[in-house]
Amino acid sequence: MKRNVYLEDIPLDEAQAAFQAALQAAGWWQPLEAEEIPVAQANGRITARAVWAKISSPHYHASAMDGYALRAQDSEGATETQPLQFTLVENWDTPPTEPRPIRPVNTGHPLPPWANAVVMIEHTQQVELADGRSGIEIRASLPPWQYVRPMGEDMVATELVLPANHKLRPVDLGALAGSGHATVAVYRQPRVAIIPTGSELVSAEKVADNGIQPGQIIEYNSLVLAAQVAEWGGQPTRWPIVPDNFEAIQTAVRHAAQNNDLILLNAGSSAGSEDYTAHVVQSLGQLLVHGVAVRPGHPVILGMVEIGDWRLETDAQSPIPNPSTTLRTSLQSLIPIVGVPGYPVSAALTGEIFVEPLLARWQGQRPFQPQTIQAMLTRKVNSHTGDDDFVRVAVGEVNGRFVTTPISRGAGVITSLVRADGIVRIPRFSEGADAGSEVTVHLYRDARDLAQTILAIGSHDLTLDLIAQFLAERSGTRLASANVGSLGGLVALRRGECHLAGSHLLDPETGIYNQSYVRRYLPNEDVVQVTLVGREQGWLVPSGNPKNIQGWAAAGRDDVQLVNRQRGAGTRVLLDYELGKLGIQPEQVRGYNREEYTHLAVAAAVVSGTADFGLGIQAAARALKLDFVPLVHEQYDLVMTRQMYESDRIRPLLDLLHDEAFKTAVSAMPGYDVSVMGNVVEINGR
Amino acid sequence: MKRNVYLEDIPLDEAQAAFQAALQAAGWWQPLEAEEIPVAQANGRITARAVWAKISSPHYHASAMDGYALRAQDSEGATETQPLQFTLVENWDTPPTEPRPIRPVNTGHPLPPWANAVVMIEHTQQVELADGRSGIEIRASLPPWQYVRPMGEDMVATELVLPANHKLRPVDLGALAGSGHATVAVYRQPRVAIIPTGSELVSAEKVADNGIQPGQIIEYNSLVLAAQVAEWGGQPTRWPIVPDNFEAIQTAVRHAAQNNDLILLNAGSSAGSEDYTAHVVQSLGQLLVHGVAVRPGHPVILGMVEIGDWRLETDAQSPIPNPSTTLRTSLQSLIPIVGVPGYPVSAALTGEIFVEPLLARWQGQRPFQPQTIQAMLTRKVNSHTGDDDFVRVAVGEVNGRFVTTPISRGAGVITSLVRADGIVRIPRFSEGADAGSEVTVHLYRDARDLAQTILAIGSHDLTLDLIAQFLAERSGTRLASANVGSLGGLVALRRGECHLAGSHLLDPETGIYNQSYVRRYLPNEDVVQVTLVGREQGWLVPSGNPKNIQGWAAAGRDDVQLVNRQRGAGTRVLLDYELGKLGIQPEQVRGYNREEYTHLAVAAAVVSGTADFGLGIQAAARALKLDFVPLVHEQYDLVMTRQMYESDRIRPLLDLLHDEAFKTAVSAMPGYDVSVMGNVVEINGR
Repeated sequence: MKRNVYLEDIPLDEAQAAFQAALQAAGWWQPLEAEEIPVAQANGRITARAVWAKISSPHYHASAMDGYALRAQDSEGATETQPLQFTLVENWDTPPTEPRPIRPVNTGHPLPPWANAVVMIEHTQQVELADGRSGIEIRASLPPWQYVRPMGEDMVATELVLPANHKLRPVDLGALAGSGHATVAVYRQPRVAIIPTGSELVSAEKVADNGIQPGQIIEYNSLVLAAQVAEWGGQPTRWPIVPDNFEAIQTAVRHAAQNNDLILLNAGSSAGSEDYTAHVVQSLGQLLVHGVAVRPGHPVILGMVEIGDWRLETDAQSPIPNPSTTLRTSLQSLIPIVGVPGYPVSAALTGEIFVEPLLARWQGQRPFQPQTIQAMLTRKVNSHTGDDDFVRVAVGEVNGRFVTTPISRGAGVITSLVRADGIVRIPRFSEGADAGSEVTVHLYRDARDLAQTILAIGSHDLTLDLIAQFLAERSGTRLASANVGSLGGLVALRRGECHLAGSHLLDPETGIYNQSYVRRYLPNEDVVQVTLVGREQGWLVPSGNPKNIQGWAAAGRDDVQLVNRQRGAGTRVLLDYELGKLGIQPEQVRGYNREEYTHLAVAAAVVSGTADFGLGIQAAARALKLDFVPLVHEQYDLVMTRQMYESDRIRPLLDLLHDEAFKTAVSAMPGYDVSVMGNVVEINGR
Repeated sequence: MKRNVYLEDIPLDEAQAAFQAALQAAGWWQPLEAEEIPVAQANGRITARAVWAKISSPHYHASAMDGYALRAQDSEGATETQPLQFTLVENWDTPPTEPRPIRPVNTGHPLPPWANAVVMIEHTQQVELADGRSGIEIRASLPPWQYVRPMGEDMVATELVLPANHKLRPVDLGALAGSGHATVAVYRQPRVAIIPTGSELVSAEKVADNGIQPGQIIEYNSLVLAAQVAEWGGQPTRWPIVPDNFEAIQTAVRHAAQNNDLILLNAGSSAGSEDYTAHVVQSLGQLLVHGVAVRPGHPVILGMVEIGDWRLETDAQSPIPNPSTTLRTSLQSLIPIVGVPGYPVSAALTGEIFVEPLLARWQGQRPFQPQTIQAMLTRKVNSHTGDDDFVRVAVGEVNGRFVTTPISRGAGVITSLVRADGIVRIPRFSEGADAGSEVTVHLYRDARDLAQTILAIGSHDLTLDLIAQFLAERSGTRLASANVGSLGGLVALRRGECHLAGSHLLDPETGIYNQSYVRRYLPNEDVVQVTLVGREQGWLVPSGNPKNIQGWAAAGRDDVQLVNRQRGAGTRVLLDYELGKLGIQPEQVRGYNREEYTHLAVAAAVVSGTADFGLGIQAAARALKLDFVPLVHEQYDLVMTRQMYESDRIRPLLDLLHDEAFKTAVSAMPGYDVSVMGNVVEINGR
């Protein structure tokens, strides 16, 4: 097993500078060549040159109405009571000899050269003239150029229609065609090869057909990178998975270098596979950067590989069926390559940090600048001082200010990017940011969406997923939830960090859920507590319950291993209460200190065999095909301020609680009781 | 010539309600069917159903580091000074019998079932054990689950990955594939036929090849509509131009109805052609709305056409090569049709108002809501009280507030949409909005772009086009200019409605340009005047100067027709001054009252033969191949406040004035003198 250790990360700005210098030296720090394409295909492309009008629009004096063309001066003196009569003529170029000539004209048609105004058909009357010819009577005098679109009203030939470096929109296509252009010069699209490497990788298609084995990893970074490249104006080509083999990777890179402007070589998940990337780059050109001090994303590799004589080789192994041999018209002999880390969050961020700015530059654009907002950080963020740290965050707008909460920091957690509303960048030399401090969030979504987001922080329940789904289908409202346990939710609510808190905290003295906790944690708030569901809690155990786990007392057995929930979770409160009644000390419970944050995570621990049982809801057992030993029926409430309860924002969610389709969907999950759904208790009301 | 007059416009909201009712009745007021497509092709598509994880990610407990797997409890007591030695084993399923077993593991690899922690390779040392076997020494104790990515850390099987009606982004593709999906159910894309009609229409391709004749109109609405439809998620098909012929149009609509979800029938420019649309719709189904009280856009037609037996006909004339016969899986027997007005601004706005919301609904989305800002209106807007009026506006951010100015109202002026920063909607029953009032602008561009826009209001000069082009190529700065003449520019500057004013106002008493006007119009402002160019003004006359127009006195001849500039234009001030010197009264000048707003528009009037001469710059004569009779050399200045002069916003423009490439480009235009470019005069400075 090849094992290399490298700790040679350089700061992000140095890495970018080194890459830029190499790109400049190799002739890649400028827009790509222009290509002339039909206007019909140009939407979204970037103009490579300014476009000047070839012909004027209109290219003649045009009638702006259906009516009659005439000379304005002939109409002088016409009034309601003293109409003037005009003679209908057919003259075009030659001025008519009649004293008051008039000629029919439709909207858009050219005016006869002798005419300079149009009278609307509605303001005329057909008459027979004294000489028996057909005539038209008008009852008001016209100013010159009335209802005429003068030549060049829209565009005059030689005028600037669009500047260079302009991203074409639908209306621009109209202006291009209307000023005489059938084609337009745009930058050609950067071609980007995306090569996934790693012997452990399997495609999602193979997994869908054949299932997956432990140790196999679904290859999806190339999907993400390809979609990113396409969104940024490039033409991605996804290569087949290349195994961890130096020659195989080298061959793939050499082939890709023939037909592409940029290669993204996506390392497998192990540090070893990044070494392959580095060695391949070294063998084919220049290794510029091996490791960048960004988090997540450390093992980024930047380099240039020579095109060399390989361009003349046959190209049978390329996934591009008919490689063009005349692609690269510039004289570059090196092309850039980025070694993209294997962890999915690192891979996606490497795209944003290193690939997007390059593709933008190649198309005459500035790097994308996301929208930013200032938000109050709800939890402390620690950061390694040597790194630029990209922290994924959820953002909510609560009581008119933005609050933001970090999401999982793991580089392997793609859902942290899926769920992120934005990124907080903790710069190098900073140790992080304190709870309560104001931070800049670079948004992934439109700030206006945040005004329609309900931020739920508190206990986890599977019904929250159903709410999110129903809201997405029924309204523009989005539910964002963070699982911090029931007590954590009440604390977040008190601090104004969320809109509602999901809670199932039993008061042992009264047997009533949540109310006494709300009074204690939010003593001065006018609070409304809306019941979401009743549900059963019990032991989640492997199918067939091989260790015969029964009753609360099972927690005290020394032959079984528990998986627990985190401190502050309602389920943990429940367990502690029942252990106390039985006189079992936490230290007596094997596995008591292993904490998971959701019911499903507890179920997953039991499925994997690393624990024998855990406390959770029946639906989590059913979801992962576990057995369920029921213990207690409990109540899960949504806690919110009265102000929130009466707001428009929460309305779609409250409506759901009286929606039969929603109730049916919840009932379909095992262990749920919807009879209590929507019950309201007011606490501390005035 | 068929001539119909209709005045039956109904209000916008009524039209929308009638359309919605008909769509509901026909089963079209709901999302389209789902189709299952490969995840690799799904970016930008909309999920038709919620997606739940099929497998957990990771689907096993995975090492998060390159290192060694072990049991955390075996490491208890290890310290720097008292390392513990572990025995290297190969065991996988069966727990090792060695007291301290350890097994190599790479990042991403599964943990052996008997292990529950990973030690990083950097924190270990290879040793030979007492029994001669290979061993590993560690120097710190590990907590359980150290450097382990537990099964389901990212996603647990059965968990919600993405809700329905979610527009897929690159990272979402990763989450889909990572949770076991090779395909995803998305709404199929609405198919939209776009049929241009009008015997006067010619394609841009034909015009590029053969030129264009008076009366011919370049067909480009279908380009705009098709690009709009594609941006809104639809699949557009552009049909060949259909002549103004009832049967031909009817046949095209019948064919289009077979393979599409929506037909956009784009009328030619005359009122007559809209009649064809109405009659065709009536003949094939229901005419719902014939004319909507929106401006621009009046003659919008809304209807439903029957699919009927036509679906069984052969389809030889369809531009779709292989029409699918199994497209429409629902039971609709009618499909919607929109008669789109012929004027390009009306056509594009019809797309935004009627087509976008329908395509959004068919894909489970809400109608697009543009970003809005509040801005101060610089000019009064009059509006017909019966209409919803969509006014295209330019927006600038001046002195920290947004100001907005209406652009040309003409429905035929596509550049009014190209140049628009947004739309101000003047609702029905309103007569308009006063200058100085605050209005809501629905933005066409990111509000942040406005912070990098230089708003120039004042005199027109062709150099402004060059500045716009150079700025677009060199920086992120955009130049937006409105032509209101030199005096209008100084007034706008005084009111804080622009960043700079282009001005060439001669003080007859001193022969000095602009300074005395600036002192008069901006008496209390600290102003900087930067010279852009010297340039020649003279008569623009037809090639060969057939009427032998010479000197200022030519303005007084009664055998020639002038085209003048608008009041407040520096060129008009110059003409009036010279006429005064010669004692020529305006009434003596034929054509004095015909006003154009730009040099090019004056040149265009001379080209078209509707005027014999006009005063303008040499470059305008050259652009339209006119002759030029030089009269005077003048100076064109950019006037701005000192605050603006020293701002970052204006810097890229000021830099241009010392840029050799820019000077060369300006010099290449005839009659321009760059020797004075960049000269600075401070006025009213303290």
